[in-house]
Amino acid sequence: MDIRIGFGVDVHQLVADRKLFIGGKELPSDLGALGHSDADVLLHAICDALLGALNLRDIGFHFSDTDPQYKGIDSKVLLERTYALIREKGYTIGNMDCTVIAEHPKLNPHIPDMQRIIASLLACETDQISIKATTHEQVDSFGERRAIKAYAVCLLKK
Amino acid sequence: MDIRIGFGVDVHQLVADRKLFIGGKELPSDLGALGHSDADVLLHAICDALLGALNLRDIGFHFSDTDPQYKGIDSKVLLERTYALIREKGYTIGNMDCTVIAEHPKLNPHIPDMQRIIASLLACETDQISIKATTHEQVDSFGERRAIKAYAVCLLKK
Amino acid sequence: MDIRIGFGVDVHQLVADRKLFIGGKELPSDLGALGHSDADVLLHAICDALLGALNLRDIGFHFSDTDPQYKGIDSKVLLERTYALIREKGYTIGNMDCTVIAEHPKLNPHIPDMQRIIASLLACETDQISIKATTHEQVDSFGERRAIKAYAVCLLKK
Ligand SMILES: [Zn+2]
Ligand SMILES: [Zn+2]
Ligand SMILES: [Zn+2]
Repeated sequence: MDIRIGFGVDVHQLVADRKLFIGGKELPSDLGALGHSDADVLLHAICDALLGALNLRDIGFHFSDTDPQYKGIDSKVLLERTYALIREKGYTIGNMDCTVIAEHPKLNPHIPDMQRIIASLLACETDQISIKATTHEQVDSFGERRAIKAYAVCLLKK
Repeated sequence: MDIRIGFGVDVHQLVADRKLFIGGKELPSDLGALGHSDADVLLHAICDALLGALNLRDIGFHFSDTDPQYKGIDSKVLLERTYALIREKGYTIGNMDCTVIAEHPKLNPHIPDMQRIIASLLACETDQISIKATTHEQVDSFGERRAIKAYAVCLLKK
Repeated sequence: MDIRIGFGVDVHQLVADRKLFIGGKELPSDLGALGHSDADVLLHAICDALLGALNLRDIGFHFSDTDPQYKGIDSKVLLERTYALIREKGYTIGNMDCTVIAEHPKLNPHIPDMQRIIASLLACETDQISIKATTHEQVDSFGERRAIKAYAVCLLKK
């Protein structure tokens, strides 16, 4: 069996007057994530983990944040296109473990929905897509609600 | 062979008038880690890596930091309970690689003790539990000794 | 097959009057990385991922930053020596996925060169060494160009 590891990390600023999308779902929040696309920090970290696992460069390489066609784009579309690249190489998801760093809002009630959305885009079971949430204990930009962060690791199998 | 990947990261503030537990061991330090439990940043990252590998949610989900029964609790108990969940699913540790980010104190002399404590709780050999230490080069909360951080990655096998 | 996971992370301050080496290559930059060696943040993260995978301690343990023999040393030498330790244990690279966090300069044009350098030192194909680049969205020391950071994950096989 051919097995490969990938790791992705993403950061977005939090600002007023933007929506907050995490894991493909809009969450209730007074602050939203700043970015060229819909700024979904979790889907971006997942895209980077998948691309990295197969040496397919990174999300900025495929979907440039200066390209007008990606302005305001739903990141689920980016994940779908990323997964097509993975499939082309003959790989599928073994499992993925994600961590979102956010002081607010509480992500726990939304995690099952996020898992369903992501598993559907990656043609796998929700049990293969773990999502964890934690805070940054009030320190630095993540702890002061000036930014959010997500990590994703994955095993891909051929 | 079924093999799964997990990733955990944890942060705690450093404050006066608290003890500093890392890897199940109390370390000599003028500052300690703030938290509801004993605030052991390394054991918490390990719990999250184990739980994430098997899609068992996260440490905050199982051991809420508002639940009085976990106030001041020794995180070795949390790791023991986490490992019981892993065993229930039929998995054992392949290997684990951990990194602690702390400006101070020097962790190196304590790493063999931490490895013994963790390997014993996870019913594996110390050679399966790597612990690395590094600083944050004096920048941000971790570099200014206002906080500490730990990462853990693991492979679990069935 | 015996398979092991490793994770490394490294941080260096950015300062004037230093060169910037990333992935074994000097990059054009007004700021350089501060450190005892040539301060190559990517090669250091890779060394730590390799050492961690096999429970061989960490880069600071093998190549102390207070030892005069490592002052200003080319980190390619450190990676070469690290890889010798991996080979001694009978392991080779499965794949590695790296992420460099830097606001500036643009790393993309240099990534193929870095891959060639690293693959050559690790006796593997460039396809086994993924390198991704991202920014820290202007927040914290990494976003304010006061520091740079790199992560590396790897699978090693026996
Ligand atoms: Zn993003
Ligand atoms: Zn904790
Ligand atoms: Zn370094």
